[in-house]
Amino acid sequence: MKNIVALAGGVGGAKLALGLYHHLQTTQFSKPAAERKIKDLTIIGNTGDDLELFGVRICPDLDTLLYTLAGLANPVTGWGIEGDTFATFEMLKRYGEECWFQLGDRDFATHLLRTQMLRAGKGLTEVTTQLTEKLGIGCRLLPMCDEDVRTIVQTAESGELPFQEYFVRRQARETVRGLRFEGAENATLSNAVRQAIAEADLIVVCPSNPYLSIWPILAVPQMKETLSASEAPIVVVSPIVGGMALKGPAAAIMRSLGGEETASALAVARLYAGWAQGFVLDQQDREDEEAIRALGFKTLVTNTIMKGTPDKARLALEILGHYKTF
Amino acid sequence: MKNIVALAGGVGGAKLALGLYHHLQTTQFSKPAAERKIKDLTIIGNTGDDLELFGVRICPDLDTLLYTLAGLANPVTGWGIEGDTFATFEMLKRYGEECWFQLGDRDFATHLLRTQMLRAGKGLTEVTTQLTEKLGIGCRLLPMCDEDVRTIVQTAESGELPFQEYFVRRQARETVRGLRFEGAENATLSNAVRQAIAEADLIVVCPSNPYLSIWPILAVPQMKETLSASEAPIVVVSPIVGGMALKGPAAAIMRSLGGEETASALAVARLYAGWAQGFVLDQQDREDEEAIRALGFKTLVTNTIMKGTPDKARLALEILGHYKTF
Repeated sequence: MKNIVALAGGVGGAKLALGLYHHLQTTQFSKPAAERKIKDLTIIGNTGDDLELFGVRICPDLDTLLYTLAGLANPVTGWGIEGDTFATFEMLKRYGEECWFQLGDRDFATHLLRTQMLRAGKGLTEVTTQLTEKLGIGCRLLPMCDEDVRTIVQTAESGELPFQEYFVRRQARETVRGLRFEGAENATLSNAVRQAIAEADLIVVCPSNPYLSIWPILAVPQMKETLSASEAPIVVVSPIVGGMALKGPAAAIMRSLGGEETASALAVARLYAGWAQGFVLDQQDREDEEAIRALGFKTLVTNTIMKGTPDKARLALEILGHYKTF
Repeated sequence: MKNIVALAGGVGGAKLALGLYHHLQTTQFSKPAAERKIKDLTIIGNTGDDLELFGVRICPDLDTLLYTLAGLANPVTGWGIEGDTFATFEMLKRYGEECWFQLGDRDFATHLLRTQMLRAGKGLTEVTTQLTEKLGIGCRLLPMCDEDVRTIVQTAESGELPFQEYFVRRQARETVRGLRFEGAENATLSNAVRQAIAEADLIVVCPSNPYLSIWPILAVPQMKETLSASEAPIVVVSPIVGGMALKGPAAAIMRSLGGEETASALAVARLYAGWAQGFVLDQQDREDEEAIRALGFKTLVTNTIMKGTPDKARLALEILGHYKTF
């Protein structure tokens, strides 16, 4: 029985987070304590992708995690709420507004409440905790920090772009030359994050884009060191399978930042070598296993492609079983 | 050909405002200048009913005017947008929010844009002008002032209540003992209102509740005097027909503030005597005409019940014709 801390970005990360949560839910109440796999689960989400539109604060990665854990997520897109409508969005267009970032009507409720609480002086950690509780989610979801940190994408064609401008508005077409995390220098580790890490028995880096989803989290001062100093092993789940990102621009970005050969499980492992101790790679990438072990990782080779909830739960269970002891 | 200034509250006021606007539209472009009935139309709306919910500023009367003039209004309720949905509202309920004031999804677009502009430092006059233009409305819609003025209802049962708490949340069930307009002392006449009044040839008080819709407008310092000092005659259209308010709590409020006999066209006329010069009453109230004339009004007795657009346009045309010369 472990306390788990998981670092997650958006859709890919949320899948494994849901797998872990599934175990928390199913083992927490129905089994004797000794057989429980997870004691407590804390998910730390990336907020580098956040933006403000129409006066409301949008946290795309936290929202994806929130909706996924609440069982509300749109299973087709992975983001947004299933069956959501777009009447507000259409009316904003009628008012002549530029609408490049889709916002559902139900989704707006989250943004409205979050913005209202933030304006009332609450921190994003407290706000996120309240939203999580209000949706009946039984694990903790924390933003990486309370301060504003913004991922800025340095592109060859258009210079610096805020993340969503690059990712959504320009559909990730520009060549990425580099990234920076604006405001990270002024961010601080929240008490909630610090405490979750202090109590962790296992730290899982969900299969999220390292550059776009995990680096912003690790850019919070002391985050990387505090995770590293924890006695809990850090296990990274590769977001690259068979040389491809399952979703999003991870592979393309790895190629443009690291060269043509870098979009591989091995390349991901190299990024985390010396900091993480475990590495989970897909069976398609079995040929990388030896090189990854040579980097010092305890590896797990399995099917990492998560389609339905059973897949997610199976992967979570395999990880928990494999990394029970180091 | 006249410059018209109309004072209006919500649904009842918006009907006559639409009738006047219909003439501006139909006569402005198709007829020679000499035959045009309206040169310019400015509607001054009540903002005493405004409220903030979920972090957005809602102006119920301005919204009703905006949607009515844009041809978007819900013809059944008179407020809100036709065919609007309530997905955001339902999701807010799921978050456990108290939702006593219905807010449609399309409607939210208006509140979001307004709030965003206000937070950016624009005044409500400028914001309202922009919303009006964005919806393609060809007349001016002005809030009574830029400052916050709030109608507070003094009730027998629950003490003081903000207007919407009284009107919507408690469904106007309390006995009204009095009203006050919080913040009115600090309000000022905007340049736009001042200029519209200076250029007016006719001032129409639309069939809105005098206490709840017109008094807040007249509570803006200098508003009553500036209207009065204008050379344009002031014509009041009675919101009471056959002893009943066509909509809303006007009759009940008149009774509780002025006694059992006061919910009549004559009672309305008495409220405006000495300030307005014209009075339009319904044919059902013909027996009040002599007494109203004795108060010094030039009267017009006609069918004031506006069902479809033809009714509204007819009433507007009759008023324009009758009060062509004093």
